[in-house]
Parts: sequence; C-alpha cells; structure tokens
Amino acid sequence: MAFAQGGRGYDRAITVFSPDGKLFQVQYAQEAVKRGYTALGIKTKSGVVLAAERRTTSELVEDGSVEKIFKIDKHIGAAASGLIADARVLIDRARVEAQVNRIRYDELISVESLAKTIGDTKQMYTQHGGVRPFGTRFLIGGVGERGPHLFETDPSGVVAAYKAHAIGGGADEAIEVLEKNYEREMNLEESTQLALRVLGEVIEGELKPEKVEMAKAEAETQEFLKMTDEEISETIDQFKSEG
Amino acid sequence: MAFAQGGRGYDRAITVFSPDGKLFQVQYAQEAVKRGYTALGIKTKSGVVLAAERRTTSELVEDGSVEKIFKIDKHIGAAASGLIADARVLIDRARVEAQVNRIRYDELISVESLAKTIGDTKQMYTQHGGVRPFGTRFLIGGVGERGPHLFETDPSGVVAAYKAHAIGGGADEAIEVLEKNYEREMNLEESTQLALRVLGEVIEGELKPEKVEMAKAEAETQEFLKMTDEEISETIDQFKSEG
Amino acid sequence: MAFAQGGRGYDRAITVFSPDGKLFQVQYAQEAVKRGYTALGIKTKSGVVLAAERRTTSELVEDGSVEKIFKIDKHIGAAASGLIADARVLIDRARVEAQVNRIRYDELISVESLAKTIGDTKQMYTQHGGVRPFGTRFLIGGVGERGPHLFETDPSGVVAAYKAHAIGGGADEAIEVLEKNYEREMNLEESTQLALRVLGEVIEGELKPEKVEMAKAEAETQEFLKMTDEEISETIDQFKSEG
Amino acid sequence: MAFAQGGRGYDRAITVFSPDGKLFQVQYAQEAVKRGYTALGIKTKSGVVLAAERRTTSELVEDGSVEKIFKIDKHIGAAASGLIADARVLIDRARVEAQVNRIRYDELISVESLAKTIGDTKQMYTQHGGVRPFGTRFLIGGVGERGPHLFETDPSGVVAAYKAHAIGGGADEAIEVLEKNYEREMNLEESTQLALRVLGEVIEGELKPEKVEMAKAEAETQEFLKMTDEEISETIDQFKSEG
Amino acid sequence: MAFAQGGRGYDRAITVFSPDGKLFQVQYAQEAVKRGYTALGIKTKSGVVLAAERRTTSELVEDGSVEKIFKIDKHIGAAASGLIADARVLIDRARVEAQVNRIRYDELISVESLAKTIGDTKQMYTQHGGVRPFGTRFLIGGVGERGPHLFETDPSGVVAAYKAHAIGGGADEAIEVLEKNYEREMNLEESTQLALRVLGEVIEGELKPEKVEMAKAEAETQEFLKMTDEEISETIDQFKSEG
Amino acid sequence: MAFAQGGRGYDRAITVFSPDGKLFQVQYAQEAVKRGYTALGIKTKSGVVLAAERRTTSELVEDGSVEKIFKIDKHIGAAASGLIADARVLIDRARVEAQVNRIRYDELISVESLAKTIGDTKQMYTQHGGVRPFGTRFLIGGVGERGPHLFETDPSGVVAAYKAHAIGGGADEAIEVLEKNYEREMNLEESTQLALRVLGEVIEGELKPEKVEMAKAEAETQEFLKMTDEEISETIDQFKSEG
Amino acid sequence: MAFAQGGRGYDRAITVFSPDGKLFQVQYAQEAVKRGYTALGIKTKSGVVLAAERRTTSELVEDGSVEKIFKIDKHIGAAASGLIADARVLIDRARVEAQVNRIRYDELISVESLAKTIGDTKQMYTQHGGVRPFGTRFLIGGVGERGPHLFETDPSGVVAAYKAHAIGGGADEAIEVLEKNYEREMNLEESTQLALRVLGEVIEGELKPEKVEMAKAEAETQEFLKMTDEEISETIDQFKSEG
Repeated sequence: MAFAQGGRGYDRAITVFSPDGKLFQVQYAQEAVKRGYTALGIKTKSGVVLAAERRTTSELVEDGSVEKIFKIDKHIGAAASGLIADARVLIDRARVEAQVNRIRYDELISVESLAKTIGDTKQMYTQHGGVRPFGTRFLIGGVGERGPHLFETDPSGVVAAYKAHAIGGGADEAIEVLEKNYEREMNLEESTQLALRVLGEVIEGELKPEKVEMAKAEAETQEFLKMTDEEISETIDQFKSEG
Repeated sequence: MAFAQGGRGYDRAITVFSPDGKLFQVQYAQEAVKRGYTALGIKTKSGVVLAAERRTTSELVEDGSVEKIFKIDKHIGAAASGLIADARVLIDRARVEAQVNRIRYDELISVESLAKTIGDTKQMYTQHGGVRPFGTRFLIGGVGERGPHLFETDPSGVVAAYKAHAIGGGADEAIEVLEKNYEREMNLEESTQLALRVLGEVIEGELKPEKVEMAKAEAETQEFLKMTDEEISETIDQFKSEG
Repeated sequence: MAFAQGGRGYDRAITVFSPDGKLFQVQYAQEAVKRGYTALGIKTKSGVVLAAERRTTSELVEDGSVEKIFKIDKHIGAAASGLIADARVLIDRARVEAQVNRIRYDELISVESLAKTIGDTKQMYTQHGGVRPFGTRFLIGGVGERGPHLFETDPSGVVAAYKAHAIGGGADEAIEVLEKNYEREMNLEESTQLALRVLGEVIEGELKPEKVEMAKAEAETQEFLKMTDEEISETIDQFKSEG
Repeated sequence: MAFAQGGRGYDRAITVFSPDGKLFQVQYAQEAVKRGYTALGIKTKSGVVLAAERRTTSELVEDGSVEKIFKIDKHIGAAASGLIADARVLIDRARVEAQVNRIRYDELISVESLAKTIGDTKQMYTQHGGVRPFGTRFLIGGVGERGPHLFETDPSGVVAAYKAHAIGGGADEAIEVLEKNYEREMNLEESTQLALRVLGEVIEGELKPEKVEMAKAEAETQEFLKMTDEEISETIDQFKSEG
Repeated sequence: MAFAQGGRGYDRAITVFSPDGKLFQVQYAQEAVKRGYTALGIKTKSGVVLAAERRTTSELVEDGSVEKIFKIDKHIGAAASGLIADARVLIDRARVEAQVNRIRYDELISVESLAKTIGDTKQMYTQHGGVRPFGTRFLIGGVGERGPHLFETDPSGVVAAYKAHAIGGGADEAIEVLEKNYEREMNLEESTQLALRVLGEVIEGELKPEKVEMAKAEAETQEFLKMTDEEISETIDQFKSEG
Repeated sequence: MAFAQGGRGYDRAITVFSPDGKLFQVQYAQEAVKRGYTALGIKTKSGVVLAAERRTTSELVEDGSVEKIFKIDKHIGAAASGLIADARVLIDRARVEAQVNRIRYDELISVESLAKTIGDTKQMYTQHGGVRPFGTRFLIGGVGERGPHLFETDPSGVVAAYKAHAIGGGADEAIEVLEKNYEREMNLEESTQLALRVLGEVIEGELKPEKVEMAKAEAETQEFLKMTDEEISETIDQFKSEG
Repeated sequence: MAFAQGGRGYDRAITVFSPDGKLFQVQYAQEAVKRGYTALGIKTKSGVVLAAERRTTSELVEDGSVEKIFKIDKHIGAAASGLIADARVLIDRARVEAQVNRIRYDELISVESLAKTIGDTKQMYTQHGGVRPFGTRFLIGGVGERGPHLFETDPSGVVAAYKAHAIGGGADEAIEVLEKNYEREMNLEESTQLALRVLGEVIEGELKPEKVEMAKAEAETQEFLKMTDEEISETIDQFKSEG
C-alpha cells in the first residue's frame, strides 16, 4: 500500500519543471545510470581506450552476451551505462546517422557531430510529452581528422568533451583513479593498463577477462576495434605481472 | 474498496522513472512473466533444444491447444513465457521480419538479428506513451551460418546470449539444474534428456507427454522442428527408463 | 458518495500492469463475460455443435431478436458470451477477414487463422491507450480441410483449441457436464443431445425452444448452419422423450 | 462543494470496465434515456406504428418543434428517446447510410442493416477514448421485402427485434400495456389505437393532439409516413369516442 | 484556497455523463448563457423580429460596438446570448454554410437547415474530447419559401421552432410577457412594439436607443435587415407615445 | 508545500466551464493583462492615437527595447498589454493576414476585419484542448475607407469598437480620465495631448520620453506611423508647457 | 515520501495560467536559468562582446568542453545560460534560420530577426500542450547593416534590446557592475576589460583563462569571432596588470 502511495508522486506522463527549475524525470533517469555498471574512457595523443565492467550472473551466460561497448562506424564506438535496451536503440540510430553522413558528404562523420546527434535525441525526450528520457549515459570515443576525441552524453542531452572519464555505478571511484594517473602522453598500451587499474578498483573480487569489455581507437590507423577475449586476457596478465 | 484504492497507484498511462531510476511498469511486466509457465533452452555444438511446461486445466482442451513454442522461420523458433497473447503478437512480427530479410537480402535472418528486432520492439513499448510493455519473455533458439544460438529477450528489451537458460515461474529451480548439468559437448539427445530432467523438477506430479512441449534446431540440418506428441512420448519413455 | 469514491480506482484510460503483473481492465472484461449468458461448443469427428442460452425478458421480443450465434462464412460460425454489441463488431471484422481470404488466396479461411485474427484484435485492445478491451469471449467452430475445429478466444486475446467447452455465466456447471459426457466418437445428433443436456442444467425452468439457439457444422458437408426454430423444437422433443 | 466532490468520480475521459465488468459511462447514458420522453412502436402484419410523447413547455413553441420521430428513408423511420441532439446526429448518419445503399446496390436498405449500422456507431462510442456514448435509444420501424420490422438500439449498441416495445421515461408502464394488449393480427388502425392507449397511460392529463407525435409504415405500400396534426387529431377523436 | 479546491471538481477535459445521465459541461455552458444579456424573437405571418438588450459599460464604447444580432445571409439572421466570441465563431461558420448552399444548389438555404447545421456543430462539441461546448444560445430568424421561421439552438445542440421566444439573463420574464401578448396575426410594426415592451421589462432604467439592437425579416420582401439607430429611435418614440 | 497544493487547482490541461458558466483559464488570462502596463487609444474624426506606458528596469535597456505598439500594415497598428511574447505572435499572424488580404483582394484589410481575425484566433485558444488562452489584450487602431476605427480584443476573443479606451494595469484610472475629457471633434494634436494626460495619471513619477511609446493614424493620409523619440519628446514638452 | 507529495503539485502536462495570471511552468523555467552559470554581453559603437563563466568540475574535462557561447552565423553569436542541452537545440534551429535567410533573400539575417525567431519558438513552447518551456536564456549579439546589436530572450519568449546585460546565477551582481561602468563610447578592448571585471565579481576564486569563455563582434569587420584560449589568456593578463 505504501508502495502504491509512493508511486503516485512520480508516475507522470511528461517531464516538466519543478518550482526550483529541476526536471525530475531527467534526474530519475540519471539514477538509472547510477544503478548501471561502470564504464570508462581514456583519450591520449595515441588514441582512445574504452573499457566496461561485465558482470555475469550465471556461468550459462555466453561471454559477451550483453554488449556494453558498441562499434558505431569504422572509426567510432561508445561505451554505455544504464538501461542497456535504451542504449541499443540510440546506438542503432547513431549507426544510421553515421552511414547517412558517409552517403551524403562522402566522408566519415566527426566524433563531435555524432555525439551531438545523440545528445539532441536525448534532449528531445526530455521536452516532449508522451515519452520518458533515455536512461543511459554514453562515452563516445573515436578518431577523426583532428585526432582522437572522447565525449560524454547524459540523459538530459548535455554533450561534453573529456580527456578521461567514467560513468555508471562506480564512476566516482573511477574518476578519482583517472585524475591521479592520467597523462596526456600515454600510449595506447599505457592507457589500457590504466583502464584495467580503474576497473580493478571498481570490480568486486579478482580482475578476470570475463569481467571486462574493452575497445581501442588508434590515432594512427583511425580504426575503432573491440578487443577479443584473448587480447583482454593477455592485457590482464600483463597488468597483473606489472601491477 | 481496498482493491480500488490500491489500483490508483499503478494504473498509469505511461512508463516513467521512479526517483530511484526504476521503470515500474517494466518491473510489473516482469512479474507477469514470473506468473507464467516455465520454459527452457539448451544450446550445444550439436544444436538447440527448447522445452516448455504445458498445463492442462481440462481434459477437453486439445493437445497443443495453446502453443508456447513457436516456429519463426525454417531455422529459428522461440519459447515464450508470460502473457501468451502478447507473445503471439511479437512472434507474428518476428515471422514477418524473417520473411522480409529473405526477400531483401536473399538469405536467412541471423538468430541475433531476429532477437534484437524483438528486443527493439519491446524497448519501444517501455518508452512511449499510450502503450504498456509486453508481458512476455522469449528464449529464441536457432542455427545460423555461425552455428547454434540461444538468446533471451525480457520485457525491458534487453537481449542476452546464453548457453542454457530458463524463464517463467520455475526459472530459478530450472537454472539451478541446468548449471549443474550443462555440458557444451552434449549431443541433441543428451540435451533433450537434460531438458526433461529440468521440467521434471519444475512440473508438478509425474512427467507426461501432455505436460511437455519440445522443439529442436539441429546444427547439421539447420532446421528448427517442433517435436510431435509421439516423439515427445518416446523421449519421456527413454528418460524414465534411464532416469 | 461511496459510489463515486469506488469509481476513481478503475475508471482509467488504459490497460496497465498492477505490481503483481496483472492487467486489471482485462480481468474486469472477463467479469463482463461471466455476467453474460452461457454458450457451449462440442467438437467430434462428425462436426461441431454450438449452442447458447436465450433469455427473453418479454413476450414482445421477437424470437431470435438478439443473436448469440453468428455465421461467419460458409464453413465457420461463433457463439459469443458477454457484451453482445462488442461481439457483433468483432464478428463483422471476422466476416470481412474471411472474405478477404477468399479473394486473396481463392480458398476458405482456416478455422485456426480466423480464431487467431480475432485473438490478435482483442490483444491489441489490451495494450494500446485510448481503448478498452473487448468484453466478450467466443467459441469459434467450423470445418476445414483438416476436419472440425473448436477454438475459444478470451478478452486478453488468448486462443485455445478445445474438444468441448463452455463460456459465460454458467460455464463452470456446463464444463462439468461436458467433461463427464463427452466422447470423441459421437455423431452430430448425439452432440446436439449432449448440448441440450448441458443447457438443461444451466437454464432456469423447463427447456423450451425459445430459450435455445443452436448451430451445426457437419464434417461431411463442410457447412455451418444455424438451426431453425422448428429444428430446435424437434431436437428438444427428442431430448425430452429420451431424457 | 459536495457537488464538486461528487463530480470527481465520474467525470472521466473514457468508458472503461469497473471491477464487476460494467461500463459506467454506458449505464449513465442509459439514465439519460430514462430522463427522456416516452416513445413506442408496434409491429403487426399490416405494418409498424411509431408514437412519441410530446411535451410543450410553452404555448409559443411551434407544434412539431422538436421532432422525436424521424423519417430516414422512403420505407424506414425511427422514434428517439434521450438526448435529442445526439439522436439527430445519428439520424443524419443513418440517412446517409440509406442513400449510400441505394446508390451502391440500387435497392432500399433493409431495416435490419440500418439498425445494425446505428448499433455499430453507438458501440464504437463506448470503446474508444475521447468520446462519450450516445445518450439515446431508438425504435427503428420500417417495411422491407420480408415485411414489417421493429428494432431497438440502446446506448451500448445492442440491437434487438421486437413485436412491440417502448423506450424513455414511461417505458415500464408502456410495455406493461403493450404486453396485455398486443395482438399480431391487428391492422394499422388497431395498432394506432393501441399506441394512443399506451400514451394515454403515460402522458399527464388529457390526451391532446399537441402532446402526440405519430408515424406509420404500411406493409402494403411499403412507405413510412409521419402523421399530420389533422390525422393525429382525428385518431384521438376516434380513440376517445371508442375508449 | 477554497477557490482552488472547488476548481478541481469541474475543471475536466471532456464532457461525460454523470451517474444520473446529465452532461455537466453542457449544463455549465447553459449557465454561461444565463449570465448573458437578453435577446428575443417574434414570428408572425408578416415576418420575424429579433431584438436584443445592449448594455454599455462606458460612454466611450461605440454604438453597436459588440453586435448581438448578426445577419447571416440575405434572408436570415440570428440573435445570440452568452459568450459573444463563441457566437461570432458559429455565425461565421453559418455564413459559409449559407454561401456553400447558394453555390451548390443555386438557392437560398432554408432557415431550418441553417439552424440544424448550427445545432449539429454544437452537439459535436458536447461529445468529443479536447473541446468545451459552445457557451451560447441563438434565436435564428428568417424568411424562406414557406414563410417566416424562428428557431432556437442551445449549447447541447437541440434545435426547436418557436412562435416567439427569449434567451439570456432575462429570458423568464421576457417569455412571460411574450406569452401574454403574442398574437399570430400581428404585423411587423406590432411585433416591433411588443419586442420593445419585452425589453422594457428586462432592461434596467428607461428604454433608450443605445440600449437596444433590433432586426426584421419581412415575409413580403424576404429580406433580413438590421434596424439603424435612427429607426430604433423612432420605434422607441412611437412605443413611448403609445405605451 | 502550500505552494504545491495551491497549484493543483488550476494547473489544468484545458479551458472548461465552471458550474456557474465561467471559463477560469480565460479569467486567469485576463489577470495576466491586468498585471501588464497600461496602453490607451483615442479615436476622433481626425484619426487614431495609440499610447503605451514604457517601464525601464535598467538604464542598460535600449530605448524601445520591448515594443508595445506594433505597426501591422500601412494603415493599421495595435497597442498590446499583458504577455508581450503572446502579443508578438498574434501581431505576426495579423501582419500575414493583412498581406494575404492585399494579395487576394488587391485592397487594404479593413480595421474591423483585422480585429475580428485576431478575436477569432483568441477564441479558438479558449475552446480547444492542449493550449492555453492568449494572455494579452489589444487596442487596434487604423484608418480605412470609412474613416478612423479603434477596436479592442480581449483574451476571450470578444471584439468591441471604442471611441477611446484603455487596457492593462492602469486601465480603470485611464478610462476615467478619458471619459471626462474625450471629445469627438478633437484634432490629432489634441488627442495626443489627452493621451499624455492619461499616461501622466498612470505613470509613476514625472512624465518622460523614455516612459512613453506613441503612434498616430491620420484620417487624411490614411497612414499609421509610430512616433519617434524626438516627436514624443516635443509632444511632452508641449504638454508640460500647456499643462 | 514528502518528496513524492511535493512532486504532485507541479508535475503537470501543460503550461496554464494560475488565478493571478501567472504561468508557473515558465517561472520554473526561469529558475532553471538562475541555477545556470553567468553570462554577459556589452554593446558599444565598436561592437559587441559576449562573455560567460566556465566552471570545470574536473581536470579531465577538455577545455571548451561544454560551449556556452555559440557562433550562429558569420556576424552573429549567442551566450546561453540555463539548460545547455536546451540551448544547443535552439542554437541549431537559429543556425538553420540564418542559412535559410541567406538563401532566400541573399543577405545576412538581421540580429533582431534572429532574436525574434528564437523568441517565437520559445513562446510556442509556453502555450501548447505536451511540451515544457525551454529552460534557457540567451544574449544574442551581432553586427548588422545598422551597427551592433544585443538582444536577450527569456523562457517566456520575450525579446528585449540592451546596451549591456547579464543572465544566469550571478546576473544581479553582474548587472550592477555593468550599470556603474558601462559607457557607450568604449572600444572593444575596453568592453572586454569590463566584461572581465564583471566575471571577476561573479566567479569564485582567482580569474583564470579556463574559467572564462569570450567572443567579439566588431562593428568594422562585421564578424563574430570566439576568442581562443590564448587570446583570453592575454586579455586576463592585461586585466590583472591594469586592474
């Protein structure tokens, strides 16, 4: 009964302002992200590394069963935190947007354009009736003509550029580690090792390949590639031997 | 009266976030699945086996009266749990999607594509006004060019890949049995026997053909086939003689 | 005043999930069916018999004034229970569907296809905003290429196949009689006699032609025919002389 | 204040089910009919007679100012009770329907078809959002190829055939008189006299031409004609001299 | 605060039935008319006279500033009471309707057709969601082939024919005077004098030209003409000298 | 908290009738006008003068920063009071309407037509769902073939003609001054001086050019012209020297 | 729980009037702006300077990560305060509008036109259902044929012209400094120094390049240019040496 009572306050059909100028549904959507797994991104001159926590509820789940890092185009990808079904829908739209850009302008979409497109879609879902905001945050990483880029979009549609950043349940701890250790001159290997160090702080228990999802966008090759289980495994071994 | 009072809290026109970032209508839809019968899927190198509990309220109900395992295309099928009318509607859409894929690309749809299509439809029903989420979970099994696959979709639209999985009222018990006994090297006959063992734990009373619905997708033939009552009967006899 | 209070709980614009995964509006629609008159169907190798209770509030009502058994196509018909105006609307759609099938495929629609079409329409009215579910259940009987069929559709859109079944206010009693007396080998005459026996249990007072509506679909002729008042009268006389 | 409070319970945007399977808005619409004036219809072999009570609030109102009996086509008409503006709208639609039938099939619409068309429109207004049900009942009388017919449609959309029937505020008393005196073999004159007898019971004070509206559809001529004030006057004189 | 509380009961988005079959929004719209100024119409063999009270809040308002009597077509006009902006909108639609009739059928629209058109529009606004009823009543007067006509339409869409009638705040008193003095054989001058007599009872203080708006539709000429201030002035002088 | 409570009573999605026939949202919109600055218009044989109070919150605001008097076409303009953003939207529509009239009929729109067009738009926003009424009143002044005209439109859509009128916060005082001093024979200079006298009563502190906005439409030239700051300055000097 | 209670008062689907003529949702949107960072604009004969506070939550955020000053066309730009995602959406529309103007009229859009376009869009979101107002204020600065211009638009859609103005959280303090120091004859360098002085008052701690975003539109060149980090750095150095 108390449950039903409580529900009446926020079961609302549209995102509107509160007297102090806040949008409750957007803030609640931010909570949905905080309940999600941790993901992080590191941008250096050499490229961008994305990494995400993977939690397996059962041995019977296939490895890589529920993706949290998505390739969007040849040179761009994103790590998501929050409602994964919401994320998949936005990623699909981003992929279409990237293809449309290729066809229309005969060139790859810039990482910034793509991030703003996602941000605009999210904003629209905070202002129009009959829909709820997207309950997901993205770290969008890629390499364009002007080098590597890392953007974040939140449920309100804000788009921001970062050197390194983390989202999801363990974001605060993760950001702390990143702030202490980030260096702009790191190569991709060093970035990868730092990413593992961050995840090591956030993930419960020992760091294992099945708990980690990773991807890299190298400045030189201008290609976004998800790391295979073998690559992740080797990286962890290296991390442990060095750590 | 208390009834009417209680109704006021959740009789809402749209799925919105609660202050802690949850979507109530989606969670309530998950409850609808928990009230459904148990279904399970087992994927090995040899193929996929789907099995579902069948409960007959009266002798006058025709065998196979209410399907819970549906053939979608030549090589794919699904077992559903939850609201069966909702499931039928989604299965119909999935069949159309599979046919469209054949016509457009002149090839069979991949099991993953089909699972994501169903997931996307489900997600849309959790974000837009004027509709309720689908109250059904699917185990989608099939064989494609890269071998056998087993996916699950839940009412929020999440799509996940499994080696073996169970849904519905007896899912917890069923998963426990699967976790203890699953082996990747099992052939289809062994998978079938394990499926019966799982149902045996979940179904009340003795295991009988009229209480069981089964289907197989063999890796070699790449065909999804529902088992006839005779085949199910034989399998149960074998199970009992071995059990 | 208490009345107005009570109304607030369920006067809602859309069918949504309750915390335990139920759809209240669908359950309330089921209640509308329980308030309806009883109807029943019996399927044997020889064909299908449909019968319905007819209650006349005044002598001035024309016999057969409000149909509860409807012919849909040459070979299919349905008995309805619940809101008769809702039933008429669905029957009209079913008739169109049957004609469309004839034109498009140059063959009669199968009983199962027709039942699923009705079920799908009903399901749609349980998931989309701005409408209420249909307050009616059908027993759909007919003869196709694979012999006689009897299906039931309920307000949620579930479609199920039966050997014999009853719906409406006296369904429980009726099903009990059917379960005790049903035999797959009965000919149409025996089915008709069993139908009267069931109605005799359910109808208040003596069994009279003006209290009964009946129809048959014979396996041999593949035709669905409503019985005339004279035929019903003769059948009742026979029943009484044998009874 | 009590007024405003009470209003909250039923001022609802759509017709939905109550927990016991009732549609409140439809039942409230039935109340609107009960608040209306009485109308009646009598069908015999010779034809159909429609009659309606006419209440004049002021001498300054023109005779026949607010019609309650409407001609729909050459051979069909209807008497309405309840909200007269609602009735006029439905009658206009019925007239169009009748004309469309003439053009499309080159024949007069059957009384039954027309009654069902009106019933279907009414049903639609009980199931879809954003509208209220029609607050009117009709007695539809006419003569077709199969002789005279009399149908009633209520706000829920139910269509029923009658030998004789009455609607509106005095319906119960009127039906009682009809049940006692109806005879299938009556000629039109006898029907007219019975209609006056019914109105005499229902109308307050003496029976006068300005309190009565009447129409006849003769089996032989197959024409629906509203009676003029003079004809009604003569009929009443005759009734009084015989009465 | 009490104000805000009270508002909750009737601030509703659609016109629906109350348990006793009433439409509250329509009744509230009727109240809006009762708050309006008085208008009246008198129909005799010689033609129709419309008259309306004119209340001037300031000397700076132009004479005839806010029309309450509108010419619709050459032969028809209307006096309105209630919300004048609502009236203007309906009058505009009526003018279009009259022109369309001229073009389509090459003849003047009949007074009855025009009145029903206005009534139908009003009815529609009492049955569909998202709108409120029109808060205005009309007295529609004109001369057609069958002589002079006077109709009234109310906010529910009811259309009624009158010999003489009054609407608005002083309607009760006005009708009383009309009932005592109306005579079918009056010529237009006598009708005009009676109209002034009625207004004299209703208007506060002395009868003056600036308090009166008048129009006539003469049977002979078949023309609807608004009276000029001079004509009204003369008529009042005559009325005073005779009165 | 009391704040939130109070909000519940009038935060409603549509303008509907209260039991005593009032439209609350329209009345609240009238309040928005009363909170606005004062504007006035004076019409004589020689032409029309419009004047409006200008309040400057900071010296950094540009003179004429927020217009309250708008030119609509060569010969027409309007002074607005209430929500200025609402006014601008309506003025834009009026300008389009005036241009359309020029193109369609090759003549200037009449002041009355333009005023009614604005009134009709305002009325529509008081009757249809999903919008709020316009929170603005206009004084529309101009010169047409039949000489100078001054109209007022209020949020309900009422259109009225005036000799002289005032709207906004100081309307009552302003009208009082106008009533005492208005004379139909005044020339434009005298009208201008009267306008200043009115503003002098309404504006706090000394009368200064930066507190006044003015425009004239001369009968002879048939042109609507906004007065420049210099012209206003001169007029005020003259007023002071004469006053 | 108190939280949920509070939410009920302002979680409303549309912007409507309160009894005292206020639009709550618009006022709440104004609050969203007050929660935003400070931005300011200064217009002199020489051009326009825009400046905005930049607050960096982490060292890992890229400089210029979240823009608050946007270039719209060659000659126009805007500083935003409030919800940055809302601002971006409006800026995108403004850019399109500016391009359309170039194509349609072959000339640059005027600063005033552009400001009104943004104001009109904002107004629309305060009057129509199903949307919330934009939670953002703009200072729009640019140079046109008639020299430099500075406009402000607020969430209600009001557009006003300023010599100098400030918006956002520190607006009051900022305006105070501007009022004391603004001089119309300042050159761009002096304007820039004044802008820094204002920000110095508003920004916590020492004035640093990473806390400031600036842009200039020079009257001579008629070009709007965002200042680079180096330019800002130099300007601050100069300010400190002079300050």
